[in-house]
Amino acid sequence: MEHIYTYLEKNKEQLLEDVKEFLRIPSISTDSNYKKDIRKTAEFVTNYLKESGFSDVKIKDTEGHPLVYAEWMEAGDAPTVLLYGHYDVQPPEPLEEWKSEPFEPEVRDGRLYARGSSDDKGQVFMHLAVLRAFFKTEGKLPINVKVCIEGEEEIGSEHLYDILHKEKDLFEADLAVISDSGFVTNDQPTILYGLKGFTGLEFTLKGPDSDLHSGMYGGAIRNPAMAMAHLLATMKDEEEVVQIKGFYDDVIPLEETERELMAKAPSEDFTKTTGAPDTVSEKGYTPVEHTMARPTLEINGVYSGYQGEGTKTIIPSTATCKLTCRLVPGQDPEIIQDLLVQHIEAHVPKGVSVTIKREPLSAKAYRVDPSHPFIMKAKESYEETFNKEAVFVRMGGSIPVVEWLDAIYDIPVVLLGFGTPDDRLHSPNESFPLEHFYTGMKTITNYYHKLANK
Amino acid sequence: MEHIYTYLEKNKEQLLEDVKEFLRIPSISTDSNYKKDIRKTAEFVTNYLKESGFSDVKIKDTEGHPLVYAEWMEAGDAPTVLLYGHYDVQPPEPLEEWKSEPFEPEVRDGRLYARGSSDDKGQVFMHLAVLRAFFKTEGKLPINVKVCIEGEEEIGSEHLYDILHKEKDLFEADLAVISDSGFVTNDQPTILYGLKGFTGLEFTLKGPDSDLHSGMYGGAIRNPAMAMAHLLATMKDEEEVVQIKGFYDDVIPLEETERELMAKAPSEDFTKTTGAPDTVSEKGYTPVEHTMARPTLEINGVYSGYQGEGTKTIIPSTATCKLTCRLVPGQDPEIIQDLLVQHIEAHVPKGVSVTIKREPLSAKAYRVDPSHPFIMKAKESYEETFNKEAVFVRMGGSIPVVEWLDAIYDIPVVLLGFGTPDDRLHSPNESFPLEHFYTGMKTITNYYHKLANK
Repeated sequence: MEHIYTYLEKNKEQLLEDVKEFLRIPSISTDSNYKKDIRKTAEFVTNYLKESGFSDVKIKDTEGHPLVYAEWMEAGDAPTVLLYGHYDVQPPEPLEEWKSEPFEPEVRDGRLYARGSSDDKGQVFMHLAVLRAFFKTEGKLPINVKVCIEGEEEIGSEHLYDILHKEKDLFEADLAVISDSGFVTNDQPTILYGLKGFTGLEFTLKGPDSDLHSGMYGGAIRNPAMAMAHLLATMKDEEEVVQIKGFYDDVIPLEETERELMAKAPSEDFTKTTGAPDTVSEKGYTPVEHTMARPTLEINGVYSGYQGEGTKTIIPSTATCKLTCRLVPGQDPEIIQDLLVQHIEAHVPKGVSVTIKREPLSAKAYRVDPSHPFIMKAKESYEETFNKEAVFVRMGGSIPVVEWLDAIYDIPVVLLGFGTPDDRLHSPNESFPLEHFYTGMKTITNYYHKLANK
Repeated sequence: MEHIYTYLEKNKEQLLEDVKEFLRIPSISTDSNYKKDIRKTAEFVTNYLKESGFSDVKIKDTEGHPLVYAEWMEAGDAPTVLLYGHYDVQPPEPLEEWKSEPFEPEVRDGRLYARGSSDDKGQVFMHLAVLRAFFKTEGKLPINVKVCIEGEEEIGSEHLYDILHKEKDLFEADLAVISDSGFVTNDQPTILYGLKGFTGLEFTLKGPDSDLHSGMYGGAIRNPAMAMAHLLATMKDEEEVVQIKGFYDDVIPLEETERELMAKAPSEDFTKTTGAPDTVSEKGYTPVEHTMARPTLEINGVYSGYQGEGTKTIIPSTATCKLTCRLVPGQDPEIIQDLLVQHIEAHVPKGVSVTIKREPLSAKAYRVDPSHPFIMKAKESYEETFNKEAVFVRMGGSIPVVEWLDAIYDIPVVLLGFGTPDDRLHSPNESFPLEHFYTGMKTITNYYHKLANK
């Protein structure tokens, strides 16, 4: 593997320039204004793979955003890896909080700042670079590889879902590898062996047809903003326990052995990393255990009435809330969504009406056995490159494709992430540490090599 | 008075063109981008008064928006009327809901549509027209008049407050007349003999320094939007009773005789006029009684997190709420604001911090004896021009200047309004009925004439 490491070292500046080019294109999947940039980004990935040595590369168009597929199957009976990643990114808003432009990558203090540098373009690129390094030095890959880089992960991977089900054979593999997660603390390699599922919806309470003069109608007309407050307050108590009837019924409890395994991982000092004045958690669980292994209900946005400068004395016409739930093994996202809808409909105050828009995409939680050989090899690869024993954690986030791969193929999904808590995913000033960018490429190299050797 | 009526009739088209010119200038007081238009509007009023026959007219500059002052004191021992009005208007948002441009006045179905046509420029103009009519026909006014038209009513009249206190003698009068209110139903002349006071504030709950990934931090970090929901839900119950400790302590109860007087007024069918599915009210009070004579707490705006297209799975960094209270006789706005602040500070959930911005301006409620001679003359003037017996009501809205005039001069404030429930004050598609525009000018003429005769 040394010659691969040497190649990566020699080409480090070029690789940095290449990933910056990748990051410059604003591949914002949730906003239809960026369709052209989405395509441009897919083309970047396609060209990079072709120029690396893949002859079988194609852009698969969908009714949404395109997916990039490539394969190289000449490694005999070595395992077949399905390499999954996504080239789309979260919206950058609020723009005024970015110190540098979200789509003009900048290195500061050893970190690469750009929307997508950590989630997920920076990490996707690390795999592209390693694959190129193998082709350029050995003329071949140690393992069979199917590359699947999609453009809708941030909005639920709707069309990937269709493709995986319609073209099942195309993506068949022995394991999947995904780099879209991170270290539990800045320098602690972490095997992510579980993810949360999710479901969500948006709902609007409507009172009067238009905003009303709050003096003339206050007291006679239900205020939709206050109705929303009352309704939301019934969904979760102040001890972070979700109050939706049936919400916890199917939750598989957290075993003591797993608590001990998780406890080996250093826990994030949440108040220090986030700036919040305090933490919270469900009784009987630490904040970390809650983020890893307990289901949640979170408001992502709520808005009603006047938000501009100064005062406007109105009763707003409507109030809207966007919320999502993160689920744990055992919970069925469709059942949970139904429970949410039932709860909302049962708690609409007198004087307002409700319309609900269910989030069409959802995912079950995912969990793989920490002692699986493919998992153990990943652990070793981390340890041999980062020189530190890896820890095992389950994450609060969701990656829908992991659940689908689990359901369709019943294969281990190796979550080989290199992010850090300081990366600020989904927030302004997202960044990725260059040290992980470079060392992580060695980890990936090491892992592909280990997979090829029995 | 017939010759005044004749003058008004002969010049009706011109008067309509003049008020449209007045309405065209976007005199939005709450938004500092419109300062030039504010001045232009003050100049319109000044010029109109000068061209009518007032020689003593001046624009009084303030640190905020200018105030127009004029006087004519040659009516001997006839009463001195302080005519108050405001030339500023509410912001027009949401713009997409207007059928015609908010600042391009349009007559449709007998109504004049424009922001400010009812509140308050249309009604201010009616007085300007009547004063002009007297000057042009009789060469004099029947009463002494001090005109005070300000530009900050929609944002609390801060600088008028200063002027009234510093130049007390300038505004001394026997009564004040204000046309900035309306008929309780479309064709029912209404004497408004009471107004509510108000106070308010804006507060923000802050959790983390930035928006967070809801998967990675959900369960460990208090969600400011949910914290806001819990906090707001403690402020008012679902029966419209404000839950702020001490809120009702000083409220002067509603006497039975007053309930009977109010009950003579036809009540608005709120669900029909607003489109809300149902009404609400405090136990023991009808919706109408609640809007007239019980204090309220209303959320004018609440916002947190993502509001754009699609999904964004974050825990928002902050949640903000703008709220105002309408007060009744007995309540002290400063005490109420303190109670609000204390309540908020006592109910901030663990894991978020709060910053509170008190609304600096406030007003006590106002109430005049319905049997005062100046009030009884107004009742007669309505009846002689609209050919219908006037009713007595107290309004849910506030006009701060009324409370200040009451406190400084202890004079009756005659609320001689001509608006209707369909006017949609503070909302898109504000309008004013032309029939009231023209007939109301006769009412004003009649009233000034009656005041002059003992």
